[in-house]
Amino acid sequence: MKKDTKPKALKRLARIEGQVRGVAKMIEEDRYCVDVVRQIQAVRAALSGLEKLALDDHLETCVDAALSSDDVSNRKEKVEELVQIFGGRM
Amino acid sequence: MKKDTKPKALKRLARIEGQVRGVAKMIEEDRYCVDVVRQIQAVRAALSGLEKLALDDHLETCVDAALSSDDVSNRKEKVEELVQIFGGRM
Amino acid sequence: MKKDTKPKALKRLARIEGQVRGVAKMIEEDRYCVDVVRQIQAVRAALSGLEKLALDDHLETCVDAALSSDDVSNRKEKVEELVQIFGGRM
Amino acid sequence: MKKDTKPKALKRLARIEGQVRGVAKMIEEDRYCVDVVRQIQAVRAALSGLEKLALDDHLETCVDAALSSDDVSNRKEKVEELVQIFGGRM
Repeated sequence: MKKDTKPKALKRLARIEGQVRGVAKMIEEDRYCVDVVRQIQAVRAALSGLEKLALDDHLETCVDAALSSDDVSNRKEKVEELVQIFGGRM
Repeated sequence: MKKDTKPKALKRLARIEGQVRGVAKMIEEDRYCVDVVRQIQAVRAALSGLEKLALDDHLETCVDAALSSDDVSNRKEKVEELVQIFGGRM
Repeated sequence: MKKDTKPKALKRLARIEGQVRGVAKMIEEDRYCVDVVRQIQAVRAALSGLEKLALDDHLETCVDAALSSDDVSNRKEKVEELVQIFGGRM
Repeated sequence: MKKDTKPKALKRLARIEGQVRGVAKMIEEDRYCVDVVRQIQAVRAALSGLEKLALDDHLETCVDAALSSDDVSNRKEKVEELVQIFGGRM
């Protein structure tokens, strides 16, 4: 991960952890289910944003380096991983 | 939320919180981006399952009660909320 | 379906049918796979829009009528169908 | 596109075109909206399968060839296109 991506990602994760605890508190306090669901959706959106951040970083570092290198099997491996990961996003 | 759904949801949230902390640790330890992304996807899948649990509970309690009641505007409100929530899942 | 939704939906379907034939032509002419994939994605987006049109119409007609009626089992049936349909969108 | 993928894709497209016409007929005959929506979802699923077929073919032909070649800029271009296309699937 790039030097400036790392603290950004960790900051987002700290916020996401707080959101997860917030959902637990809502359930403990018997808050309205619809509000709970909306809050869970907000956490999922935050995680999706973090995933995009990590993916973009990966593309700009490891994948780009592999594509520039002479190592054919490493290039193919990196792209196969990418296809797998994108499959998991859907 | 139903009596047996609540502890189940809280248990899942405790596990999800642990997973989120695990992702932070992976990033701190400079683990391979692809493994980080996969772990984020696993957390999102866990949250999606929790959301389904909360939604199903809501359908079986609040929505079902509203549909059985004589309060037309409450019935419509519940269904409108439902449509909104489902929109947020997509 | 409402009187003004029907011609709108049919017009969209005629366009979608043309798009599907367009994709077939692209494949027959050995056009670049990436352009084919993009065109398929455009057709899927058009179908998704049509689905939303049909769903909104359904909500404003059948579902709204059921919710206003005294027939409890019809209300529940309509909402169950809705939940199923939304599941299929995801 | 590979020799054996092309007829497969065209066959699927012919079926999809028939399905689209089927949806139009359902709307013309004022069939129940929920059945119309379900049929639209079936067409979308068929298109999604076709898209996967075209994507897999593209990976096995153009992308694989680019990754094996000495042309760095072509490799990067192919992977950028891939990332874009996957973005459109989501």
